[in-house]
Amino acid sequence: MAIEQVVDYIDENRERYVEELMDLLRIPSVSAVSEHKEDVLKAAEFVADHFRSMDFDTEIVPTTGHPVVYAEKIVDDGLPTMMVYGHYDVQPVDPIELWRNDPFEPTIEGPNVVARGATDDKGQMFTHIKAAEAFYRSEGRMPVNLKYIIEGEEEVGSVHLVEFLDAYEERLSADFAVISDTGQFAEGVPAITYGLKGLAYFQIDLKGSTQDLHSGSFGGTVANPANVLGQIIAKLRDETGRITIPGFYDDVLPLEDWERQEFAKLPFDEEGYRNYIGAPQLAGEQGYSTLERRWARPTLDVNGIWGGYAGEGSKTVLPAKAGAKISMRLVPRQEPAKIEELFTSYVREICPPTVELEIQVMAGAHASITPTDTKAMDAARIAIEKGFGKAPVMIREGGTIPVVADLKQKIDVDTILLGWGLPDDGTHSPNEKFNLGDYHRGILASAHLMNELRQSGLS
Amino acid sequence: MAIEQVVDYIDENRERYVEELMDLLRIPSVSAVSEHKEDVLKAAEFVADHFRSMDFDTEIVPTTGHPVVYAEKIVDDGLPTMMVYGHYDVQPVDPIELWRNDPFEPTIEGPNVVARGATDDKGQMFTHIKAAEAFYRSEGRMPVNLKYIIEGEEEVGSVHLVEFLDAYEERLSADFAVISDTGQFAEGVPAITYGLKGLAYFQIDLKGSTQDLHSGSFGGTVANPANVLGQIIAKLRDETGRITIPGFYDDVLPLEDWERQEFAKLPFDEEGYRNYIGAPQLAGEQGYSTLERRWARPTLDVNGIWGGYAGEGSKTVLPAKAGAKISMRLVPRQEPAKIEELFTSYVREICPPTVELEIQVMAGAHASITPTDTKAMDAARIAIEKGFGKAPVMIREGGTIPVVADLKQKIDVDTILLGWGLPDDGTHSPNEKFNLGDYHRGILASAHLMNELRQSGLS
Repeated sequence: MAIEQVVDYIDENRERYVEELMDLLRIPSVSAVSEHKEDVLKAAEFVADHFRSMDFDTEIVPTTGHPVVYAEKIVDDGLPTMMVYGHYDVQPVDPIELWRNDPFEPTIEGPNVVARGATDDKGQMFTHIKAAEAFYRSEGRMPVNLKYIIEGEEEVGSVHLVEFLDAYEERLSADFAVISDTGQFAEGVPAITYGLKGLAYFQIDLKGSTQDLHSGSFGGTVANPANVLGQIIAKLRDETGRITIPGFYDDVLPLEDWERQEFAKLPFDEEGYRNYIGAPQLAGEQGYSTLERRWARPTLDVNGIWGGYAGEGSKTVLPAKAGAKISMRLVPRQEPAKIEELFTSYVREICPPTVELEIQVMAGAHASITPTDTKAMDAARIAIEKGFGKAPVMIREGGTIPVVADLKQKIDVDTILLGWGLPDDGTHSPNEKFNLGDYHRGILASAHLMNELRQSGLS
Repeated sequence: MAIEQVVDYIDENRERYVEELMDLLRIPSVSAVSEHKEDVLKAAEFVADHFRSMDFDTEIVPTTGHPVVYAEKIVDDGLPTMMVYGHYDVQPVDPIELWRNDPFEPTIEGPNVVARGATDDKGQMFTHIKAAEAFYRSEGRMPVNLKYIIEGEEEVGSVHLVEFLDAYEERLSADFAVISDTGQFAEGVPAITYGLKGLAYFQIDLKGSTQDLHSGSFGGTVANPANVLGQIIAKLRDETGRITIPGFYDDVLPLEDWERQEFAKLPFDEEGYRNYIGAPQLAGEQGYSTLERRWARPTLDVNGIWGGYAGEGSKTVLPAKAGAKISMRLVPRQEPAKIEELFTSYVREICPPTVELEIQVMAGAHASITPTDTKAMDAARIAIEKGFGKAPVMIREGGTIPVVADLKQKIDVDTILLGWGLPDDGTHSPNEKFNLGDYHRGILASAHLMNELRQSGLS
């Protein structure tokens, strides 16, 4: 079979593909808001209908939360099997007043479609469905075995996805998985993301007294939990940005030479990055470049801090309580469970006995790294070069996509992250957009990937 | 003249004095709440009427805020002049649901009257008016020259009192001033408070980026203002509780030996105090007892801290901003203006250039200490012994009463603090109370003080 006719089909159906994406974008499938429960289900059905029209074995699998759409097409046991993960749910739209148009009335603005979910993840996820459709309609069958997991709770932490993975474990074998929920490195610089960070998230609560005290009448006689909190936070990192929790770096996978070389070659504008963020200076662990710190070095951040009086003016209160949310982004080989133990025992050690300490474990997720010397990765590189007209750069990401580690741990499947989005797409922000050129190129790249796999001798 | 007939008058009118206090307590003169503006004025008029009925030169002096009642009676230039400061405004009543009765329908519960303002300061302030009345009605004239400053904005920081003091400066000369707005050391342990702490109150705002960032995508590349805030707070005190701002202790008036001995003799139950506060342990600057730290050593407390996400669950945000309110309680000889300079330059020095720093000066007040070897102080000691049947202990206070420093600086008048309240009166709390026995004894002590002064040869 020739890929040309598939490419032609994709080119010829470009407008219809955009219209169908806009239909999907019109469904306000906000998973975090319970009044949108029906809309979330509607989006699941929309996606499932697409699979059914291509004769996939399609199920809307209920979970304790929103359902997972699972669609599978085994064309030949001798062919490679590609898994696709994506999500049909979207972020809330607040602050709604900052949107130029109704977030669920997709609007074409120049090269982009503007709508909630345009890039995250409806638009990106849809490219892999439309690529399959192009094969089905032009060749009459899929080029490889395909398994799609399209969930409805990614924006609320994929809280029930594991229920699905556990129940369907035996059906989920695959040679590798693809996710398009990240981005290109920059406009015109397509990328393959082969590493993600993990997460260990805690809440610390300190209590110094039964109720808030008058800072004059009681100051100097009891510990102030907000002061103690400052001391604890200060002891988590040293002045060079290094995390001081004993044993924290023991299992860190060091950056390899080729990675440092590749990252150094990327067209990264430090000053532009600093300007975009609005920081007076960039900062972080000494001895590593900005991209190295961002993608491959563990970090520790206070995500929230509170205690006492935060209103206008001055109140001379000695707070009874203070607290903070503190999380670490982990890198490959760091075990969240071990970090949890190191963090909690260190904090217990440095916290003085003058306050009561409570530590809650809020979340944990493994980092991931995908081998770059595989046939699947080679296929992905070629597919992007053919779809985007440019070879991809190899990058990592500081964020966490827990499903990547779940797929690895539960079904031993490595994931290749093929992001079609752009850094300024505004995922989770007002006026989220997706470049329709990238949508089209993404469909082409996905089709090329399937075609490369068919020829790869993989599996 | 004999004091006995004055004492008899006070005893005979005990019930009427209580009823009149209850009338005053019925006026909801909450200075902080603008809808109570008329009530505040009504309380001023109530107080002024009392003075007028005793032929005082009485004025309701307008300020930019609530008025000051000023009443003056010069009986003889050769007699000593006693000034009384008090306030007729009260704290808000929130949380109202915790009150057993309407806070402005005074209720007799056992030995106490329960109402907002019962002890702070209507009940205590009123004792000095009722003592004067006893002289006026029984002897026909005042025993000494009397000047009363009863303001209506103490509970909102005496924000406009200085307008009055500036305008009336020439009329305000006095041998000393009396304020009853503190407390006894404990039930049955009357006290004279001869020292108060001052205050230097700041707000620190740190900004690390234009808006909140994703802690995965941006963590490790820019400073986190909440982490930096923790570092700054940690550097303000060392592990022994000593404040580490260079020069901070330079002007501190050390405790004298007699003070340390007196404090050590007080019936202070450390374990009871700790239990009352609900602290796991007492804490504070090494080398000083709890009462010494509380009354006579400077302290530094975070009064409020904020930044990032403080809601339920976990949000992986790298906050754009974080801030804290930080105040120091100062001791005599420490200048708030100098402390302001030391604090701000030290914080600027320790704050890294990776965040933007803003420091606001929120409030400043001088500490005060009243000489204990004066005729006025001797008179006060005798008066309390006669009124309460027990010699007072000499104590200091960790709180700040700015008017005490103002009277000293503007008109060179020392203040003696004669507190009739009890530590558990619940000033500023629901079900505020005042022991009516202490009310009566306070009136007696005030009358004895006037009588002692008349005989003292002071002035």
